[in-house]
Amino acid sequence: MAKGSGMIHPNMATMIGVITTDCAISSGSLNKALRHAVNRSFNRISVDGDTSVCDMVVILANGRAGNTLITENDDHEYNRFTKALEMICIDLAKEIAADGEGATKLIEINVTGAPSDQDANKITRSICNSPLVKTAFFGEDANWGRILTAAGYSGAVFDPDKCSINIGSIPVFSSGIAVDFDEDHVKSILNMDEIKVNIDLSQGNGSDTMWTCDFSYDYIKINGSYRT
Amino acid sequence: MAKGSGMIHPNMATMIGVITTDCAISSGSLNKALRHAVNRSFNRISVDGDTSVCDMVVILANGRAGNTLITENDDHEYNRFTKALEMICIDLAKEIAADGEGATKLIEINVTGAPSDQDANKITRSICNSPLVKTAFFGEDANWGRILTAAGYSGAVFDPDKCSINIGSIPVFSSGIAVDFDEDHVKSILNMDEIKVNIDLSQGNGSDTMWTCDFSYDYIKINGSYRT
Repeated sequence: MAKGSGMIHPNMATMIGVITTDCAISSGSLNKALRHAVNRSFNRISVDGDTSVCDMVVILANGRAGNTLITENDDHEYNRFTKALEMICIDLAKEIAADGEGATKLIEINVTGAPSDQDANKITRSICNSPLVKTAFFGEDANWGRILTAAGYSGAVFDPDKCSINIGSIPVFSSGIAVDFDEDHVKSILNMDEIKVNIDLSQGNGSDTMWTCDFSYDYIKINGSYRT
Repeated sequence: MAKGSGMIHPNMATMIGVITTDCAISSGSLNKALRHAVNRSFNRISVDGDTSVCDMVVILANGRAGNTLITENDDHEYNRFTKALEMICIDLAKEIAADGEGATKLIEINVTGAPSDQDANKITRSICNSPLVKTAFFGEDANWGRILTAAGYSGAVFDPDKCSINIGSIPVFSSGIAVDFDEDHVKSILNMDEIKVNIDLSQGNGSDTMWTCDFSYDYIKINGSYRT
């Protein structure tokens, strides 16, 4: 279970998450697995770039499944558990982002080919927090220029001439050159509840994924007119 | 002259500024004076936290005033010139922020008492970029909690228990304690075109000033529905 969904920005922010499992797992391993999963999920969503001072995710394991106790020494079982936990956390995190104040759609930003994972994360963060990117998605416009610009000012090592951007399955920008894409086709993708943006930097093997939502009139209403 | 006014975020962003003077001043000194002034003005405004790739400020001096050439060696005249230039740049920068897309008011954020100027600037930046702070000003609500939170997550050395916040002349938060202020009085200040927020950290001598605007329905409209 998880609850959002304003003031959402890594790390976590105004949210509470409770995960329960019947699995038997040592508390040290459970702690480590949760930290890994949170980093890939709740720390990878942004609604408004505002971090709250209040956040929490807990996991409770009661061991009722009766399995052999999982510890980090058992790589196979520990990795299976961690993978499953990561899946669940990503699922909950995406729901929080999709449920962001005033949001009409969930946007997934994938960066691949970065010089490092850190560079990739700088770019996903920058794009996910850009009001201009978020308003363009609200307006259902394939504005790759705003995406490219947010990547450019992110502080990451970034070469626009090597960069390619796909919105859904449609290339809109390819190795530094604007693609003459079918606007109606892209519009039909931008009209959906969930949109994936893939940005390939062709600069290395670093990657990152973050989720955000669009920026709508209702965000302003909820956060500007809450007392009237 | 200066032109904005979206994608405004240090450094400068989508803006162009041209300043002319009849003053006789060496080009090295003019360059240095402009850099100083820009740093206190055009690099201290934020409309949406989006930095553009296109920006420019130039200054042209034709020497027609016939004064003795000002150089950095003449501290007194150089300082007078720099001070005047800074005033002009701040004036233009404030106009850009006030004219931000969809803006209904200009907000000046002053931080004093910071451990360092760098800490003060982290806090002014964080507050000026917070959509929650900006929507609260649009809604004319004296939401010091959002201001305090943005200061807290700025990364600056910050002790909320020592912090005091004034909106205009009215204390709303004093040394870590909420002030029971007159809501109507604050409302009359928040209703104005220009609002000053003073934040005293009581932690040192660092200070910084930045200007931003509120976040309104029209910002979303201008940036989300620009093609319809």
